[in-house]
Amino acid sequence: MVGSELTNIRAPRVKAARRLAKRSFREQDRRFLAEGPQAVREALKLDGVTLELFATAEAEQRHADLVAQALAQGVPVHRASGEVMAELSQTVTPQGLLAICGFVHVPLETALAGGPKLVAVLAHVRDPGNAGTVMRAADAAGADAVVFTDASVDPYNGKCVRASAGSLFHLPVVIGSPVARAVHELKAAGLRVLAADGAGERTLDDVELDLPTAWIFGNEAWGLPEDVRALADEVVRVPIYGQAESLNLATAAAVCLYASARVQRVP
Amino acid sequence: MVGSELTNIRAPRVKAARRLAKRSFREQDRRFLAEGPQAVREALKLDGVTLELFATAEAEQRHADLVAQALAQGVPVHRASGEVMAELSQTVTPQGLLAICGFVHVPLETALAGGPKLVAVLAHVRDPGNAGTVMRAADAAGADAVVFTDASVDPYNGKCVRASAGSLFHLPVVIGSPVARAVHELKAAGLRVLAADGAGERTLDDVELDLPTAWIFGNEAWGLPEDVRALADEVVRVPIYGQAESLNLATAAAVCLYASARVQRVP
Repeated sequence: MVGSELTNIRAPRVKAARRLAKRSFREQDRRFLAEGPQAVREALKLDGVTLELFATAEAEQRHADLVAQALAQGVPVHRASGEVMAELSQTVTPQGLLAICGFVHVPLETALAGGPKLVAVLAHVRDPGNAGTVMRAADAAGADAVVFTDASVDPYNGKCVRASAGSLFHLPVVIGSPVARAVHELKAAGLRVLAADGAGERTLDDVELDLPTAWIFGNEAWGLPEDVRALADEVVRVPIYGQAESLNLATAAAVCLYASARVQRVP
Repeated sequence: MVGSELTNIRAPRVKAARRLAKRSFREQDRRFLAEGPQAVREALKLDGVTLELFATAEAEQRHADLVAQALAQGVPVHRASGEVMAELSQTVTPQGLLAICGFVHVPLETALAGGPKLVAVLAHVRDPGNAGTVMRAADAAGADAVVFTDASVDPYNGKCVRASAGSLFHLPVVIGSPVARAVHELKAAGLRVLAADGAGERTLDDVELDLPTAWIFGNEAWGLPEDVRALADEVVRVPIYGQAESLNLATAAAVCLYASARVQRVP
């Protein structure tokens, strides 16, 4: 534990963490907040990613293993009062544990260097909860990378980090690539680029999915714009067998990614 | 349009609608609120389900087709001030259109009467957004019914209705059936009952999915309790190919339901 308990929400250390709730300050400091034991546990698995840890007295007891692990790695651990934690937390019921982490994303070239077979691309996705859930589904489906194009939400947004349930720390994440450049590089890396959109002529049931594939997922409300669809090798829709108009973004992404994963992995 | 614009949030008509935000009053009145143009459109497709419609002046213009349709069906339409709509709405940015609907659920026997091939069961699901998203996914996958067991969230909860994106009005929904009774009836209707849970020995890739199937999905945080798993013919897990600990409930349900739908429909 470093120093005495932080009780003043105007203390410089608290303000320096608090400002990371804003994207512009995250980009300036190249740091973000990871909240809750699950995110902290996954962050601590990566060398040098966790820069500071805040813990309430209660969380320090409940998650003594994580606090010990942080201290063993030389991470400064600050005890914070409930009021300070509430100030830093972006949730209604703070879990008492919050880390400041250094950025973990990688350049597009690095993400595509190892002969990827399954990649998820988020183009114009604006809802952080949806984006985080797609990251988690991509991780579960064994994807090799997740690419956020330049018009998408920031994966370091607190809600996105939470929805990813640790997956932000599991697989290579790329940020801010213009979609045309991303598609060009994905094709150059030998991936077939499929745009998931209700406008697709063929459905998931009719497309060959055994080749290395990059899936592009678009905005919750209006899908993928025409210029993005045109960049893909093919536009593919998830078949709707009932009366629903569409699936929500994260469930559609999970269905597409798992369909590819299954065909690629199960003989 | 019936009468003059409602501007008083304490008017009896407004209070009678407002109380439907609470489950106990919904059950007493056998009515619920459906908010937004999408839900209202789907409600109006069913005979006699829409009992009253509230519309702001702006929404009345923007959704003139829906208002006309309601009036043609003899549904009383009340013009509401922005303040009254904000009082009735359960969203941060009300869309200006809100219907009072009669209950649409059916008895379990009715839902299972037509030789169902795919059914989704929600056992102990507590988050209304997740439950609504599962309904939407079940509808998209062409499921024949959705069963909410007695320990699950109320599908008439406003957040659940919204997340279902109209699907609550599309397929037979059953409410409040004890899980043991539901499983018994599902088996009697010739369905294989699969419990989706990380504790499953076999994965989705290893199970025969071409038979008529009922999937049981459990709580977000702790999955399905042992006694529910024991009722199923088999416990099946979604394979995790990457490092994620699990999938979120709605994405896992979508992956399972689509895996069944595909095998059942694509030769």
